[in-house]
Amino acid sequence: MVIVMKPGCQDSEISEVSKALESLGLGVHISRGMERTIIGVIGDKRLLNDIPIELMPGVEKTVPIVESYKLASKTFKPEPSIIDVKGVKIGGKELVIMAGPCAIESREQIFEAAMAVKKSGAQFLRGGAFKPRTSPYAFQGLEEEGLKLLKEAKEAAGLLAISEVTSERAVEIADLYVDMFQIGARNVQNFQLLREVGRSMKPVLLKRGPSTTIDEWLNAAEYIMNEGNYNVVLCERGIRTFETATRNTLDISAVPVIKNSSHLPIIVDPSHAAGKSQYILSLSKAAIAAGSDGLIIEVHPNPRCALSDAAQQITPGDFDILCRDISRIAEIVGREFTHGG
Amino acid sequence: MVIVMKPGCQDSEISEVSKALESLGLGVHISRGMERTIIGVIGDKRLLNDIPIELMPGVEKTVPIVESYKLASKTFKPEPSIIDVKGVKIGGKELVIMAGPCAIESREQIFEAAMAVKKSGAQFLRGGAFKPRTSPYAFQGLEEEGLKLLKEAKEAAGLLAISEVTSERAVEIADLYVDMFQIGARNVQNFQLLREVGRSMKPVLLKRGPSTTIDEWLNAAEYIMNEGNYNVVLCERGIRTFETATRNTLDISAVPVIKNSSHLPIIVDPSHAAGKSQYILSLSKAAIAAGSDGLIIEVHPNPRCALSDAAQQITPGDFDILCRDISRIAEIVGREFTHGG
Amino acid sequence: MVIVMKPGCQDSEISEVSKALESLGLGVHISRGMERTIIGVIGDKRLLNDIPIELMPGVEKTVPIVESYKLASKTFKPEPSIIDVKGVKIGGKELVIMAGPCAIESREQIFEAAMAVKKSGAQFLRGGAFKPRTSPYAFQGLEEEGLKLLKEAKEAAGLLAISEVTSERAVEIADLYVDMFQIGARNVQNFQLLREVGRSMKPVLLKRGPSTTIDEWLNAAEYIMNEGNYNVVLCERGIRTFETATRNTLDISAVPVIKNSSHLPIIVDPSHAAGKSQYILSLSKAAIAAGSDGLIIEVHPNPRCALSDAAQQITPGDFDILCRDISRIAEIVGREFTHGG
Amino acid sequence: MVIVMKPGCQDSEISEVSKALESLGLGVHISRGMERTIIGVIGDKRLLNDIPIELMPGVEKTVPIVESYKLASKTFKPEPSIIDVKGVKIGGKELVIMAGPCAIESREQIFEAAMAVKKSGAQFLRGGAFKPRTSPYAFQGLEEEGLKLLKEAKEAAGLLAISEVTSERAVEIADLYVDMFQIGARNVQNFQLLREVGRSMKPVLLKRGPSTTIDEWLNAAEYIMNEGNYNVVLCERGIRTFETATRNTLDISAVPVIKNSSHLPIIVDPSHAAGKSQYILSLSKAAIAAGSDGLIIEVHPNPRCALSDAAQQITPGDFDILCRDISRIAEIVGREFTHGG
Repeated sequence: MVIVMKPGCQDSEISEVSKALESLGLGVHISRGMERTIIGVIGDKRLLNDIPIELMPGVEKTVPIVESYKLASKTFKPEPSIIDVKGVKIGGKELVIMAGPCAIESREQIFEAAMAVKKSGAQFLRGGAFKPRTSPYAFQGLEEEGLKLLKEAKEAAGLLAISEVTSERAVEIADLYVDMFQIGARNVQNFQLLREVGRSMKPVLLKRGPSTTIDEWLNAAEYIMNEGNYNVVLCERGIRTFETATRNTLDISAVPVIKNSSHLPIIVDPSHAAGKSQYILSLSKAAIAAGSDGLIIEVHPNPRCALSDAAQQITPGDFDILCRDISRIAEIVGREFTHGG
Repeated sequence: MVIVMKPGCQDSEISEVSKALESLGLGVHISRGMERTIIGVIGDKRLLNDIPIELMPGVEKTVPIVESYKLASKTFKPEPSIIDVKGVKIGGKELVIMAGPCAIESREQIFEAAMAVKKSGAQFLRGGAFKPRTSPYAFQGLEEEGLKLLKEAKEAAGLLAISEVTSERAVEIADLYVDMFQIGARNVQNFQLLREVGRSMKPVLLKRGPSTTIDEWLNAAEYIMNEGNYNVVLCERGIRTFETATRNTLDISAVPVIKNSSHLPIIVDPSHAAGKSQYILSLSKAAIAAGSDGLIIEVHPNPRCALSDAAQQITPGDFDILCRDISRIAEIVGREFTHGG
Repeated sequence: MVIVMKPGCQDSEISEVSKALESLGLGVHISRGMERTIIGVIGDKRLLNDIPIELMPGVEKTVPIVESYKLASKTFKPEPSIIDVKGVKIGGKELVIMAGPCAIESREQIFEAAMAVKKSGAQFLRGGAFKPRTSPYAFQGLEEEGLKLLKEAKEAAGLLAISEVTSERAVEIADLYVDMFQIGARNVQNFQLLREVGRSMKPVLLKRGPSTTIDEWLNAAEYIMNEGNYNVVLCERGIRTFETATRNTLDISAVPVIKNSSHLPIIVDPSHAAGKSQYILSLSKAAIAAGSDGLIIEVHPNPRCALSDAAQQITPGDFDILCRDISRIAEIVGREFTHGG
Repeated sequence: MVIVMKPGCQDSEISEVSKALESLGLGVHISRGMERTIIGVIGDKRLLNDIPIELMPGVEKTVPIVESYKLASKTFKPEPSIIDVKGVKIGGKELVIMAGPCAIESREQIFEAAMAVKKSGAQFLRGGAFKPRTSPYAFQGLEEEGLKLLKEAKEAAGLLAISEVTSERAVEIADLYVDMFQIGARNVQNFQLLREVGRSMKPVLLKRGPSTTIDEWLNAAEYIMNEGNYNVVLCERGIRTFETATRNTLDISAVPVIKNSSHLPIIVDPSHAAGKSQYILSLSKAAIAAGSDGLIIEVHPNPRCALSDAAQQITPGDFDILCRDISRIAEIVGREFTHGG
């Protein structure tokens, strides 16, 4: 961290700041420029987390130099992490695709979805049981009943299961049925929940929030990792911008940016980013071409009858085309994916 | 709701849509334009919540005409609501000011803050016990111990108490100590938590999230009200934009917009919006001039020693000036506030 | 357009609005719902452009149903347009790549760049002569002298030339030297300039502005087309959001959205979107995978000596790798590009 | 400026960077931390404007310490500037109000507006003659004919005149008729135009663009000032965000932020920020309470007949109430404004 002093600050103010830093065991490096004096802080900047240096007399501002997260950073662990979920490796050479309906609606629906996505090559079955919905009047999910169906379907199809958890209670229940937890975009800074899944050791898919910076997102991962659970996979799903032609704006650059600053794997969710089924194939191909480690896609046997987010779910037929195209792009970017399982 | 058909859609597609609507008990009104045919839907649009009209053949898009919330809307209740918290009325002629430290740190600190803000005229003591922090390495709050201190301090000073709740467990605990719950910006779409405070009947201050539209914010209020708790006060605290000169961008227009579309009271939090103490007086005056029903301000007996958000907390001296200025602007906008209690 | 009346509006107000519309030769369709009465307007909505229907008594708001541009829309011309620039076809099966330095700096630099990008397969040489820079103290370009060098270099290499125009005077000068005009992001709503290039009939590359919606962008294209120049190619180059890890946020979804709503070709500029050379290869591949008709890339023989935007220019060596990768992705998405010319 | 070296960089890389800086006459200060080595640059950082330090081997990034503008900064001139326009002082104790129609439409209209706004206390008559409109099919202004009417009306009423200029030609023409130029939001980075008004010495009202940061805005002012014209007044008019309840989001915090970082006066335009007449009174009061030096308001004798932006223009009656309220708030914030002239 660099501390920038105000123009014309007193020498006594500079030495006050230096003393405060040294009393914390931090090193100090003073550099007097033409317009400003700056103080470089040497040592573990987390010691400064709760010390309001910016309020000391003569201080104009502080400027962070290193990232605020540690365990999630590439500085901490330069080589990429591979997250192993019961044998399926996320972040390795093989691309991982998670697919299934937005919400689990019935045994028939989830079984049909499971068989279809397995057939095209997906490794994970997704399906929502605890649904956070903007309006209280919308369908809220089947909860535990849904998770039971999810587990039966994934076992029948030979897939792994992932589902969103929205509260401590949901974590406890879902723990019995799923192979991987999903933290949804609205809960990316629900720190209580992050700690909860951090204590469980089960792999976690951590979606970015619609207004979460990459720095905040990696700090959210840090909450989980700080509890001892290093099995975190990131998921870019679009950010909120002024553009309304799509539901959110897919931040495709997040893929290379994350690869540059973190060792954690990253996959892309084009369904929530676009919000419209006609854009999903195009965005899926873009994600893989950009270097994503996989995709999570909403697939419904009959989108027109879906009870939530119908407009963004694709049919098994379209999903099969998507998997075929992805398998071909995979090769060109040095990855693998087997269309048709 | 209006359904817009694609250019060149078939008559059979139009009649399919009409039939689907009529089967739900909705009325239908078809209007054939030069470029598009549109279908007006007559009846309770919530019947359509889970029916994907947009996926029916020939449909281009649907356009909402009325707001998606009901209980929070001015259409539902045209006259402004006044929320009575043990005799202090929020939304009435008198302005309400909530003040106190970001986090409760010690008995001495919270008592000193309580006495100071009472002296200047505040009606509520605020203080965080469950602190959601971006980094897991930052101070996380005193939890129940803090709430006990808050209760003692507010009773000693003759104030009411408000504190943030971040989980179901926090709601249970805080219920014993505070007069009003606060839902923080990061939890505005934590629907489980919204329902929980909705069931409690205790008044709720609902902060807007950094990327929450006004429409989504009122839907979040709807979650609370739908459980039977109508004692909701909204709090504008800045939204996330590209501008970084302030921590967030205070959306001052939210004050007249809410007054135009909802009956719920609205107060403003300039501390989190600005993130810097030197802008708080200016923004507080702006908020009251714009028609806000009150303010929530971070005040710390000694900001330089604060354990969190030090840069945005003001001193009791500056808070007293703020209260004096507010009392004078109050008159001009037809409100009242007694500086000095 | 649909006109939404206020709840409880008078019958007389409805008939006033109807009369106003009919007096303009527009048809009227009234639909009385449970909560609102709405009036559908039938006919050319541009007749309403300057009539403030929203201010008539009883009117709550107006809701547009069809897009506000005409010549640029797919409704007007359903099949994709192919823009022919002296034999190079933009929007056809072959991908088009424009490459070269941010700014033309010297004869040696632009010749070296021209030979290099030609060798890798680019069809256009780009190079700025009129440089809009945020700070007045930064290098502002060689102007006409630069354009002369650009022309010599492109002819020597057998390329076409494109360069940005920033004023009417720049249009006049550049007209003598370049094969295609570029309108930069900052000028996307400089309507005077749009009309000027609209009158010239020379092909125009129209960059999206950092805060331009897709709707506004197509309206900007409409300004050019309305003067009779239909040779417009769109260029997505990132929008401004809260994320600062990249210079702008590349809106990759703009590619399929434009393909869905307009017949104009679209290419992508990853250099300005990312602002950092290490992300350009990844974003270029994503753009082509998403369906872009081409790319415009900043390539400098020696980026470390560049006089502007050094951080986002890549070397000829990296550009060659990019062209090779693009040629391979091209096949998979049904396009063509010959690496190595 | 501070240069941050990559973790594990070579000593030779550090000395390469140092040499490059020293060769430019800049001082160098090296500070070796636990995680990074940083290099402080001492001297005029503008020497580095076109040197791509970020591309040198071993460099991770550069971090600016002082603002990028100079003439517009408070460091350069600590005391507030007062801009004198023919005796009316902007930035002094007296608030300045500019008012009039969005566009000049007819002699009758502009005279009626002039008399009305003068009567309520405004010092400037505003009226657009060169209208930048999103759609090419909307009314584009009366151009020189309009400016003649503006001049006649302002002289008859005893006001000063301000009007927007959109091109070099418009500057030449408007110079004959107006007392102050306005640079509109869309042209805030039209650097050619900024230089043009910079050379004219006539006072300039510089609107912020919808996606312009405060830093970029002050750099735009720098373009004008760098030509020798220091008579610049800033105007906040709303920024583009995800919220659509208002046309733009008024960034009220820009008022205290500008007061903190620049000596230039700032006024507020609530009309374009809100886009809806019913919010203008509220936002005007907020602006003055926040410390704005004045307002620019759209007033039309008969908004329902306006040819552009009808929804955001207020009537002379409402403007009179606004001026009365402003005069009362002025006193409380230590300013003056005489309602009724």
